[in-house]
Amino acid sequence: MHFASDNGSGVPPEVIAALGRANDGFAAGYGADPLSLAVRDRLRALFEAPQAAVHLVATGTAANALALACYCPPWAAVFCHRVAHIEEDECGAPEFYTGGAKLVLVEGSDARMAPDALEARIKATGGAGVHNVQRGMVSLTNTTEAGTVYTPAEVAALSQVAHRHGLPVHMDGARFANALVATGATPADITWRAGVDVLSFGGTKNGLLGVEAVILFDPAKAWEFELRRKRGGHLFSKHRYLAAQMDAYLEGDLWLRLAGQANAMAERLTAGLTARADTRLVHPPQANMVFAAFPRAVHRRLQAAGAKYYLWPFDQTLEGPDDAPVSCRLVCSWSTTAAEVDAFLAHMDG
Amino acid sequence: MHFASDNGSGVPPEVIAALGRANDGFAAGYGADPLSLAVRDRLRALFEAPQAAVHLVATGTAANALALACYCPPWAAVFCHRVAHIEEDECGAPEFYTGGAKLVLVEGSDARMAPDALEARIKATGGAGVHNVQRGMVSLTNTTEAGTVYTPAEVAALSQVAHRHGLPVHMDGARFANALVATGATPADITWRAGVDVLSFGGTKNGLLGVEAVILFDPAKAWEFELRRKRGGHLFSKHRYLAAQMDAYLEGDLWLRLAGQANAMAERLTAGLTARADTRLVHPPQANMVFAAFPRAVHRRLQAAGAKYYLWPFDQTLEGPDDAPVSCRLVCSWSTTAAEVDAFLAHMDG
Amino acid sequence: MHFASDNGSGVPPEVIAALGRANDGFAAGYGADPLSLAVRDRLRALFEAPQAAVHLVATGTAANALALACYCPPWAAVFCHRVAHIEEDECGAPEFYTGGAKLVLVEGSDARMAPDALEARIKATGGAGVHNVQRGMVSLTNTTEAGTVYTPAEVAALSQVAHRHGLPVHMDGARFANALVATGATPADITWRAGVDVLSFGGTKNGLLGVEAVILFDPAKAWEFELRRKRGGHLFSKHRYLAAQMDAYLEGDLWLRLAGQANAMAERLTAGLTARADTRLVHPPQANMVFAAFPRAVHRRLQAAGAKYYLWPFDQTLEGPDDAPVSCRLVCSWSTTAAEVDAFLAHMDG
Amino acid sequence: MHFASDNGSGVPPEVIAALGRANDGFAAGYGADPLSLAVRDRLRALFEAPQAAVHLVATGTAANALALACYCPPWAAVFCHRVAHIEEDECGAPEFYTGGAKLVLVEGSDARMAPDALEARIKATGGAGVHNVQRGMVSLTNTTEAGTVYTPAEVAALSQVAHRHGLPVHMDGARFANALVATGATPADITWRAGVDVLSFGGTKNGLLGVEAVILFDPAKAWEFELRRKRGGHLFSKHRYLAAQMDAYLEGDLWLRLAGQANAMAERLTAGLTARADTRLVHPPQANMVFAAFPRAVHRRLQAAGAKYYLWPFDQTLEGPDDAPVSCRLVCSWSTTAAEVDAFLAHMDG
Repeated sequence: MHFASDNGSGVPPEVIAALGRANDGFAAGYGADPLSLAVRDRLRALFEAPQAAVHLVATGTAANALALACYCPPWAAVFCHRVAHIEEDECGAPEFYTGGAKLVLVEGSDARMAPDALEARIKATGGAGVHNVQRGMVSLTNTTEAGTVYTPAEVAALSQVAHRHGLPVHMDGARFANALVATGATPADITWRAGVDVLSFGGTKNGLLGVEAVILFDPAKAWEFELRRKRGGHLFSKHRYLAAQMDAYLEGDLWLRLAGQANAMAERLTAGLTARADTRLVHPPQANMVFAAFPRAVHRRLQAAGAKYYLWPFDQTLEGPDDAPVSCRLVCSWSTTAAEVDAFLAHMDG
Repeated sequence: MHFASDNGSGVPPEVIAALGRANDGFAAGYGADPLSLAVRDRLRALFEAPQAAVHLVATGTAANALALACYCPPWAAVFCHRVAHIEEDECGAPEFYTGGAKLVLVEGSDARMAPDALEARIKATGGAGVHNVQRGMVSLTNTTEAGTVYTPAEVAALSQVAHRHGLPVHMDGARFANALVATGATPADITWRAGVDVLSFGGTKNGLLGVEAVILFDPAKAWEFELRRKRGGHLFSKHRYLAAQMDAYLEGDLWLRLAGQANAMAERLTAGLTARADTRLVHPPQANMVFAAFPRAVHRRLQAAGAKYYLWPFDQTLEGPDDAPVSCRLVCSWSTTAAEVDAFLAHMDG
Repeated sequence: MHFASDNGSGVPPEVIAALGRANDGFAAGYGADPLSLAVRDRLRALFEAPQAAVHLVATGTAANALALACYCPPWAAVFCHRVAHIEEDECGAPEFYTGGAKLVLVEGSDARMAPDALEARIKATGGAGVHNVQRGMVSLTNTTEAGTVYTPAEVAALSQVAHRHGLPVHMDGARFANALVATGATPADITWRAGVDVLSFGGTKNGLLGVEAVILFDPAKAWEFELRRKRGGHLFSKHRYLAAQMDAYLEGDLWLRLAGQANAMAERLTAGLTARADTRLVHPPQANMVFAAFPRAVHRRLQAAGAKYYLWPFDQTLEGPDDAPVSCRLVCSWSTTAAEVDAFLAHMDG
Repeated sequence: MHFASDNGSGVPPEVIAALGRANDGFAAGYGADPLSLAVRDRLRALFEAPQAAVHLVATGTAANALALACYCPPWAAVFCHRVAHIEEDECGAPEFYTGGAKLVLVEGSDARMAPDALEARIKATGGAGVHNVQRGMVSLTNTTEAGTVYTPAEVAALSQVAHRHGLPVHMDGARFANALVATGATPADITWRAGVDVLSFGGTKNGLLGVEAVILFDPAKAWEFELRRKRGGHLFSKHRYLAAQMDAYLEGDLWLRLAGQANAMAERLTAGLTARADTRLVHPPQANMVFAAFPRAVHRRLQAAGAKYYLWPFDQTLEGPDDAPVSCRLVCSWSTTAAEVDAFLAHMDG
């Protein structure tokens, strides 16, 4: 019953096998090997973006911070949701990589920025000339931190606000596959066709050891990205092992099947939770994460049964009356099974 | 006949197997899993340093830059050899991670700093108070970029200069295993017992997919290191896969056997080269790299036969008279075979 | 009728005269001249802080950013009010000087942080270990951006919150003199005795050409401050001309007389405004700034008469119905006269 | 007998008077006042560069670091002479403002870069693609740190090397006036007509309290400069007082008369020194600085007589045999008198 995080899961056997295959003989370093080039082309084809610059890194924080740094000078304002990963979970990596840009926080329910709220924050920023930080970029997260998703139309609505002010758009897609499965959109429709300029295309949370692709749909910044990646210590000498993971991920749509399983398990979990009178959903579950509130007594039973998940927010306590609710985050991954979900639901009743 | 770089080699089967074993089930993220903790303890034991802080990262550039940043404020001078990897091959990563420290270059034959030259550079730096950058740290590389090594006594001589001026000492050990095999020293003797304060303990060049350990013998900076690692995007969520590689590396002294093979092949290559009247060694080969100069005609034959290696320095050309010498770098790895070396030597004669 | 900003005013003749006196003959550079040392001692005495480190710079932005940088590592959170100068008016200088710290915004009416709100923001920051920026420092502004002041007791209440969490306290005192006159406190009572660790002691807005003093009540960071100042390009070679200004400023309590005049004029202006049925105060005026809302028709008359002031916020327009109110900021300086105030009030009626 | 530095001198009465005149009434802040605009136009006319962007700052370190930052990304190599002020005397300000660029040191006698040496350093930098810092900019100093000057032709020779590699050229003109007087060139001939892209036009060492102008002959970077200046804390609110100084400096060619006096006094000093059998010039004096070596006994007599100057290099000692030479730097300023020079020469004989 592991619902703590999708990064607690392992990787499917296809990925380990791919590492073994890639291990044969010598290979040019730093991404010049044939497999790395093939993976680049594969991602270009998947996104219907033959000119895109595609670069692999090993962590989502690196992908996001490098992507932002290529578009944001140090005096930029980056508009993002208050609970965005780049704001809350990267120990200031965006500030580090940009040389001190400022994250300007936008409100919106269920971790989604509302276009009006974005418009208002942009307008309120940078009006006093040289005295202010300057409007820089918009960053949105899909799947969001609350387990909701933006449809292509919703992405486009935010991009239009951004572009109207001349700002490029970044999408943090650490859980991009889950959003794609949830919306049924094509990769192109939910990104560049909806106005996204640069994407962090996640692999780690959805079944890889540690690989993310940064896709710059306009390759103008490609060389700058490479310099920033190297300077950040994120250029792998034995780059083929990153490429091999990503290759296996895309082969036969493995990535979509993995995300499909995670989303399906979240749906199964949601069905079980909504059937309970004592449980409330905190956000509408749309991908692989479920945020729910249930009585502390239920929480205690689950803990006793060994269920793993985080209280959300973190600072709730086990102490308190039996019937007072606690909120928690339940994350399904590609490796979550129906049996695991059912066991969790069963343990809620003790 | 691959002598371009030790990072062009793959990894031994034990490492792939270890990834497969580590893949079983769920694991806590970010280094809190049992395997990551066990590897930390294993490195502490190996270095006879039970208090040391041990952190894994995926690249040598990250290891070096993070290690320097923990000891050097932005106004520090880092004393290193003119051809050090941190000066020549990291696109300014040390400057990035330290917030703008200055690398002050020390001379010395065969890529080794001489204690007197180090002393002179330290004394010449920072004498004008607030107007200058301040003396910060000494960084030495073992195995050096020229394929030479420092013995424990030679390390200690440099450390004594550094410590006399109150400066901590970093060792870039991207090829630490090769230096250890070459000198026969223990890990402790050639590091903290010789005055080294922080070590980049390399794995990637010697048979891993991408793992280096940063070992801070005094753990006072451990938390700062963790924050800098996270902020740099170098904290792996699925940390167990870094740990699994390092665990396999250390198991049964695999790492020393790998380095032993590389060094032995370099010795075999050296023997063959020194037997030739038309060939000269550029640096004394002491580990797994051989720098040699031979006639351009020989170079052309080797190229025609498919031998892979770099001209060193890079800017030499194929054009020129047959008998004019070219200089090249020949790197042996754990996977270099005697047959490969012998074929190389045979092709020199056409 | 100049109410645009206190930095639009000139300097009193005493200050120009002091520059002339300081100009005699040679002087040691970089703050080692006798006048610079005397001014340092004078500020120590004024603040009853004989050990304090005192450094002069030429701008308020430099003073604030350098002060923060000495206490905040790049991964720090700086807690300040949403409208603080360091957040809104320095083009990211705090982020630049700290190497990318994050300003975390606290709410509170009239630009004053409430202790409870500060406590809540601190508690909500940094709870997830290495993933978050770390709690770093509290910065408060006195006189605030809304023309209100903190009393010594109010400063102490905020400092207690900060210190309970181990955080040092910075006071942005660009209008420190106005706050002092308004509260009647002593310099020591409203700073270090109330828990302030480092003060930006403003001179420019209150009658100098361009001098601020940064006072570190604990001198432990003095040398770091000096290095950061030099590295920031803020160490004046002909330092005596900064010192001469500050010396004239303190001589015979000139600085308090200047601030007293500014505050008195704001009071006179407030009296006239509150006597009007069509005018409303936006914030309670407590020092030298008055924020008022009056009908657009009044605004048009004032503009036509040549009155200088800013609409606040900036993005209001002249267009609109005659009776709809506009908000504006009216700043009095040491050189504002009663005649000027009275003329302004008279023009409101046309 | 003050020969320690030209920044130890005061300012001519015209400059103090100009401050008094500028002090009348209110003025728009941040450089929008009429005097600031007039000074901008005056410098454009002086340099025959009607499109140039002109910005004032208060220190030479700020001028240099901001100028470099506008042209150099963090991964740039800045080519400069080993003893350049930006390398030796700014505590790493260029690294700070550029976000970590690397200063690559060029050799050349008497602090002048030789075109061949510059060419060689450029060629040796950045040949390995993403692994290296990238060629960024060339910075030369005129008057140099050794008191020598570059003629327009010599500047052009270096610029041609730079431009052939696509690199812009910065001139550190902290002592620009002295170089101009020494060469008899026009401001345009020795700067943009000789290929200089951006100039730090010094005022402080030649008679101002603290003002330098940064002149970007191509205004494309003007807005970036303004943002960097503000973010660096170098935008003065009461900007008129910087402008007033610069205005007085240019009025009636005051600046050239001041530099002419300094150079003439250095010439007089040189004549006296070369007449002595026991004294040797270390560098050929071409502007306002004289580097000379004379017996320690002479040095002792001068010290006893109260002469002020620095040993150069710093780390020589007073101890030693009477006849062993010491090297020193003797700087003349606009306020140095013939009587002072003659007294110095007289005291050499006791």
